Amino acid sequence: MSEQGLGTNIVCQIAVVVKDIEKSKKVYSDIFGLPDPDVIITDLEVGKPMYKGQPTQARAKLAFFNMGQVSIELIEPIGEPSTWKDGLDEKGEGFHHIAFQIKDTDQVVAYLEGKGGTLVQQGHYTGGMYSYVDMTPQLGMVLELLENFD
Amino acid sequence: MSEQGLGTNIVCQIAVVVKDIEKSKKVYSDIFGLPDPDVIITDLEVGKPMYKGQPTQARAKLAFFNMGQVSIELIEPIGEPSTWKDGLDEKGEGFHHIAFQIKDTDQVVAYLEGKGGTLVQQGHYTGGMYSYVDMTPQLGMVLELLENFD
Repeated sequence: MSEQGLGTNIVCQIAVVVKDIEKSKKVYSDIFGLPDPDVIITDLEVGKPMYKGQPTQARAKLAFFNMGQVSIELIEPIGEPSTWKDGLDEKGEGFHHIAFQIKDTDQVVAYLEGKGGTLVQQGHYTGGMYSYVDMTPQLGMVLELLENFD
Repeated sequence: MSEQGLGTNIVCQIAVVVKDIEKSKKVYSDIFGLPDPDVIITDLEVGKPMYKGQPTQARAKLAFFNMGQVSIELIEPIGEPSTWKDGLDEKGEGFHHIAFQIKDTDQVVAYLEGKGGTLVQQGHYTGGMYSYVDMTPQLGMVLELLENFD
Protein backbone atom coordinates (compact mmCIF):
# COMPACT_ATOMS: atom_id res chain seq x y z
CA MET A 1 0.00 0.00 0.00
CA SER A 2 2.84 2.35 0.82
CA GLU A 3 4.02 1.93 -2.77
CA GLN A 4 1.18 4.19 -3.93
CA GLY A 5 3.45 7.07 -3.00
CA LEU A 6 2.06 10.59 -2.70
CA GLY A 7 -0.46 10.06 -5.49
CA THR A 8 0.53 13.46 -6.92
CA ASN A 9 3.59 15.39 -8.05
CA ILE A 10 1.86 18.76 -8.26
CA VAL A 11 3.45 21.21 -5.86
CA CYS A 12 0.68 23.54 -4.63
CA GLN A 13 2.45 25.71 -2.03
CA ILE A 14 5.89 27.12 -1.34
CA ALA A 15 6.01 28.26 2.28
CA VAL A 16 8.26 30.87 3.82
CA VAL A 17 8.60 31.54 7.56
CA VAL A 18 8.86 35.17 8.58
CA LYS A 19 9.26 37.13 11.79
CA ASP A 20 6.77 39.90 11.00
CA ILE A 21 4.04 38.92 8.56
CA GLU A 22 2.56 42.42 8.33
CA LYS A 23 5.91 43.73 7.12
CA SER A 24 6.74 40.75 4.88
CA LYS A 25 3.36 40.56 3.14
CA LYS A 26 3.68 44.23 2.14
CA VAL A 27 7.15 43.58 0.70
CA TYR A 28 5.96 40.50 -1.21
CA SER A 29 2.90 42.25 -2.61
CA ASP A 30 5.00 45.26 -3.61
CA ILE A 31 7.78 43.29 -5.33
CA PHE A 32 5.48 40.84 -7.15
CA GLY A 33 2.77 43.41 -7.85
CA LEU A 34 0.10 41.30 -6.18
CA PRO A 35 -2.82 42.28 -3.92
CA ASP A 36 -1.89 42.68 -0.25
CA PRO A 37 -3.59 39.62 1.29
CA ASP A 38 -5.50 39.35 4.55
CA VAL A 39 -3.76 37.61 7.43
CA ILE A 40 -5.38 34.42 8.71
CA ILE A 41 -4.62 33.25 12.26
CA THR A 42 -4.81 29.50 12.85
CA ASP A 43 -7.42 28.43 15.42
CA LEU A 44 -6.46 26.04 18.21
CA GLU A 45 -10.04 24.77 18.59
CA VAL A 46 -10.28 23.90 14.89
CA GLY A 47 -6.63 22.98 14.47
CA LYS A 48 -5.99 20.75 17.50
CA PRO A 49 -2.31 20.84 16.48
CA MET A 50 0.00 18.02 17.53
CA TYR A 51 3.76 18.50 17.55
CA LYS A 52 5.87 15.33 17.76
CA GLY A 53 2.86 13.44 19.10
CA GLN A 54 1.93 15.94 21.83
CA PRO A 55 -0.69 18.71 21.78
CA THR A 56 0.83 22.15 21.26
CA GLN A 57 -0.57 25.62 21.83
CA ALA A 58 1.45 27.01 18.92
CA ARG A 59 -0.42 28.97 16.27
CA ALA A 60 0.59 30.91 13.18
CA LYS A 61 -0.35 33.93 11.14
CA LEU A 62 -0.70 33.04 7.44
CA ALA A 63 -0.87 35.03 4.18
CA PHE A 64 -1.14 33.62 0.65
CA PHE A 65 -0.02 34.91 -2.75
CA ASN A 66 -1.40 33.32 -5.91
CA MET A 67 1.49 32.44 -8.25
CA GLY A 68 -0.27 30.18 -10.74
CA GLN A 69 -0.35 26.48 -9.82
CA VAL A 70 1.62 27.43 -6.74
CA SER A 71 0.78 29.75 -3.86
CA ILE A 72 3.50 31.35 -1.82
CA GLU A 73 2.45 31.08 1.84
CA LEU A 74 3.98 33.37 4.44
CA ILE A 75 3.94 31.97 7.99
CA GLU A 76 4.67 33.89 11.18
CA PRO A 77 4.82 31.48 14.12
CA ILE A 78 2.94 32.42 17.31
CA GLY A 79 4.18 30.56 20.36
CA GLU A 80 5.89 27.19 20.26
CA PRO A 81 6.67 24.37 19.72
CA SER A 82 5.91 24.10 16.01
CA THR A 83 7.69 23.14 12.83
CA TRP A 84 7.32 26.80 11.79
CA LYS A 85 9.16 28.05 14.90
CA ASP A 86 11.82 25.35 14.41
CA GLY A 87 12.39 26.61 10.87
CA LEU A 88 12.77 30.20 12.02
CA ASP A 89 15.10 29.22 14.87
CA GLU A 90 17.27 26.90 12.78
CA LYS A 91 17.54 28.73 9.43
CA GLY A 92 16.08 32.18 10.00
CA GLU A 93 13.53 33.79 7.73
CA GLY A 94 13.08 31.98 4.45
CA PHE A 95 11.94 28.77 2.82
CA HIS A 96 10.21 26.26 5.07
CA HIS A 97 8.41 23.60 2.97
CA ILE A 98 6.57 22.69 -0.20
CA ALA A 99 3.04 21.29 -0.03
CA PHE A 100 1.03 18.70 -1.96
CA GLN A 101 -2.71 18.09 -2.02
CA ILE A 102 -3.13 14.41 -1.19
CA LYS A 103 -6.08 12.05 -0.73
CA ASP A 104 -5.24 9.73 2.16
CA THR A 105 -3.17 11.22 4.95
CA ASP A 106 -2.51 7.96 6.82
CA GLN A 107 -1.37 6.18 3.68
CA VAL A 108 0.93 8.97 2.49
CA VAL A 109 2.42 9.58 5.95
CA ALA A 110 3.12 5.83 6.25
CA TYR A 111 4.69 5.85 2.78
CA LEU A 112 7.00 8.76 3.66
CA GLU A 113 7.87 7.25 7.05
CA GLY A 114 8.80 4.10 5.13
CA LYS A 115 11.21 6.26 3.11
CA GLY A 116 12.81 7.58 6.32
CA GLY A 117 10.66 10.68 6.95
CA THR A 118 9.50 11.84 10.39
CA LEU A 119 5.97 13.10 11.08
CA VAL A 120 6.63 16.29 13.04
CA GLN A 121 3.32 18.12 13.15
CA GLN A 122 -0.29 17.47 12.28
CA GLY A 123 -3.49 19.43 12.65
CA HIS A 124 -6.76 20.49 11.08
CA TYR A 125 -8.18 23.45 9.23
CA THR A 126 -11.81 24.04 8.31
CA GLY A 127 -12.57 21.28 5.80
CA GLY A 128 -9.34 19.36 6.00
CA MET A 129 -6.10 18.45 7.72
CA TYR A 130 -2.39 19.02 7.28
CA SER A 131 0.69 16.95 8.09
CA TYR A 132 4.32 17.99 8.09
CA VAL A 133 6.79 15.21 7.34
CA ASP A 134 10.44 16.10 7.79
CA MET A 135 12.36 14.71 4.81
CA THR A 136 15.46 16.83 5.41
CA PRO A 137 17.89 13.87 5.37
CA GLN A 138 16.34 12.53 2.15
CA LEU A 139 15.10 15.58 0.19
CA GLY A 140 16.70 18.48 2.05
CA MET A 141 13.30 19.80 3.11
CA VAL A 142 10.02 19.33 4.96
CA LEU A 143 6.95 18.26 2.96
CA GLU A 144 3.44 19.33 3.88
CA LEU A 145 0.51 17.09 3.00
CA LEU A 146 -2.90 18.73 2.65
CA GLU A 147 -6.05 16.59 2.64
CA ASN A 148 -9.38 18.28 1.97
CA PHE A 149 -12.31 16.25 3.29
CA ASP A 150 -15.32 15.72 1.03
CA MET B 1 10.30 51.43 -16.47
CA SER B 2 11.29 49.57 -13.32
CA GLU B 3 7.63 49.67 -12.26
CA GLN B 4 6.86 46.93 -14.80
CA GLY B 5 8.09 44.50 -12.17
CA LEU B 6 8.89 40.92 -13.09
CA GLY B 7 6.15 40.77 -15.72
CA THR B 8 5.13 37.38 -14.35
CA ASN B 9 4.12 35.70 -11.10
CA ILE B 10 4.39 32.14 -12.40
CA VAL B 11 7.03 30.23 -10.45
CA CYS B 12 8.64 27.75 -12.87
CA GLN B 13 11.41 26.16 -10.79
CA ILE B 14 12.13 25.30 -7.17
CA ALA B 15 15.86 24.65 -6.84
CA VAL B 16 17.63 22.55 -4.23
CA VAL B 17 21.40 22.42 -3.73
CA VAL B 18 22.86 19.00 -2.98
CA LYS B 19 26.28 17.52 -2.27
CA ASP B 20 25.93 14.39 -4.41
CA ILE B 21 23.48 14.72 -7.29
CA GLU B 22 23.73 11.06 -8.32
CA LYS B 23 22.57 10.02 -4.88
CA SER B 24 19.95 12.77 -4.46
CA LYS B 25 18.32 12.31 -7.87
CA LYS B 26 17.78 8.62 -7.12
CA VAL B 27 16.14 9.49 -3.78
CA TYR B 28 13.92 12.15 -5.40
CA SER B 29 12.86 9.85 -8.25
CA ASP B 30 12.15 7.02 -5.79
CA ILE B 31 10.10 9.09 -3.33
CA PHE B 32 8.10 10.99 -5.96
CA GLY B 33 7.80 8.02 -8.35
CA LEU B 34 9.31 10.01 -11.22
CA PRO B 35 11.79 8.98 -13.95
CA ASP B 36 15.44 9.16 -12.90
CA PRO B 37 16.64 12.15 -14.94
CA ASP B 38 19.91 12.60 -16.79
CA VAL B 39 22.49 14.90 -15.24
CA ILE B 40 23.43 18.02 -17.21
CA ILE B 41 26.77 19.70 -16.53
CA THR B 42 26.90 23.43 -17.15
CA ASP B 43 29.41 24.50 -19.80
CA LEU B 44 31.84 27.34 -19.12
CA GLU B 45 32.20 28.19 -22.82
CA VAL B 46 28.45 28.55 -23.25
CA GLY B 47 27.78 29.85 -19.76
CA LYS B 48 30.47 32.50 -19.33
CA PRO B 49 29.35 32.75 -15.70
CA MET B 50 29.95 35.93 -13.74
CA TYR B 51 29.88 35.93 -9.95
CA LYS B 52 29.61 39.33 -8.27
CA GLY B 53 30.82 40.99 -11.45
CA GLN B 54 33.88 38.77 -11.99
CA PRO B 55 34.27 35.72 -14.25
CA THR B 56 34.14 32.44 -12.31
CA GLN B 57 35.17 28.92 -13.25
CA ALA B 58 32.38 27.44 -11.13
CA ARG B 59 30.08 24.94 -12.80
CA ALA B 60 27.20 22.77 -11.62
CA LYS B 61 25.58 19.41 -12.23
CA LEU B 62 21.82 19.77 -12.77
CA ALA B 63 18.85 17.38 -12.77
CA PHE B 64 15.18 18.28 -13.29
CA PHE B 65 11.94 16.72 -12.08
CA ASN B 66 8.64 17.73 -13.71
CA MET B 67 6.10 18.61 -11.01
CA GLY B 68 3.43 20.31 -13.11
CA GLN B 69 3.87 24.06 -13.61
CA VAL B 70 6.99 23.77 -11.49
CA SER B 71 10.16 21.76 -11.96
CA ILE B 72 12.28 20.78 -9.01
CA GLU B 73 15.90 21.38 -10.01
CA LEU B 74 18.71 19.66 -8.14
CA ILE B 75 22.05 21.47 -8.28
CA GLU B 76 25.43 20.09 -7.25
CA PRO B 77 28.04 22.85 -7.33
CA ILE B 78 31.38 22.11 -9.01
CA GLY B 79 34.15 24.46 -7.95
CA GLU B 80 33.54 27.99 -6.70
CA PRO B 81 32.65 30.78 -6.26
CA SER B 82 28.98 30.49 -7.13
CA THR B 83 25.62 31.25 -5.56
CA TRP B 84 25.06 27.47 -5.51
CA LYS B 85 28.22 26.84 -3.46
CA ASP B 86 27.30 29.77 -1.17
CA GLY B 87 23.93 28.15 -0.51
CA LEU B 88 25.49 24.81 0.34
CA ASP B 89 28.10 26.42 2.59
CA GLU B 90 25.67 28.70 4.40
CA LYS B 91 22.57 26.51 4.84
CA GLY B 92 23.62 23.00 3.84
CA GLU B 93 21.66 20.81 1.45
CA GLY B 94 18.19 22.13 0.71
CA PHE B 95 16.22 24.95 -0.88
CA HIS B 96 18.21 27.49 -2.87
CA HIS B 97 15.87 29.62 -5.02
CA ILE B 98 12.69 29.88 -7.05
CA ALA B 99 12.83 30.84 -10.73
CA PHE B 100 10.68 32.90 -13.06
CA GLN B 101 10.66 33.04 -16.86
CA ILE B 102 11.06 36.69 -17.73
CA LYS B 103 11.33 38.73 -20.95
CA ASP B 104 13.88 41.48 -20.35
CA THR B 105 16.74 40.62 -18.03
CA ASP B 106 18.17 44.14 -17.76
CA GLN B 107 14.78 45.64 -16.92
CA VAL B 108 13.89 43.02 -14.31
CA VAL B 109 17.33 43.06 -12.69
CA ALA B 110 17.12 46.86 -12.46
CA TYR B 111 13.62 46.58 -10.98
CA LEU B 112 14.76 44.12 -8.29
CA GLU B 113 17.90 46.16 -7.56
CA GLY B 114 15.57 49.12 -7.06
CA LYS B 115 13.76 47.03 -4.44
CA GLY B 116 17.05 46.34 -2.61
CA GLY B 117 18.13 43.12 -4.35
CA THR B 118 21.73 42.27 -5.29
CA LEU B 119 22.71 40.67 -8.60
CA VAL B 120 25.04 37.87 -7.48
CA GLN B 121 25.49 35.68 -10.54
CA GLN B 122 24.69 35.76 -14.22
CA GLY B 123 25.41 33.48 -17.14
CA HIS B 124 24.10 31.84 -20.28
CA TYR B 125 22.69 28.51 -21.35
CA THR B 126 21.98 27.38 -24.89
CA GLY B 127 19.18 29.67 -26.06
CA GLY B 128 19.04 31.99 -23.10
CA MET B 129 20.49 33.50 -19.97
CA TYR B 130 20.00 33.33 -16.22
CA SER B 131 20.42 35.88 -13.42
CA TYR B 132 20.42 35.28 -9.69
CA VAL B 133 19.23 38.22 -7.61
CA ASP B 134 19.66 37.86 -3.85
CA MET B 135 16.47 39.09 -2.21
CA THR B 136 17.18 37.47 1.16
CA PRO B 137 16.71 40.66 3.20
CA GLN B 138 13.42 41.38 1.41
CA LEU B 139 11.89 37.98 0.54
CA GLY B 140 14.02 35.54 2.54
CA MET B 141 15.36 33.98 -0.67
CA VAL B 142 17.27 34.27 -3.93
CA LEU B 143 15.27 34.69 -7.16
CA GLU B 144 16.45 33.32 -10.49
CA LEU B 145 15.40 35.06 -13.69
CA LEU B 146 15.39 32.98 -16.88
CA GLU B 147 15.25 34.70 -20.26
CA ASN B 148 14.90 32.55 -23.36
CA PHE B 149 16.07 34.34 -26.51
CA ASP B 150 13.86 34.20 -29.62
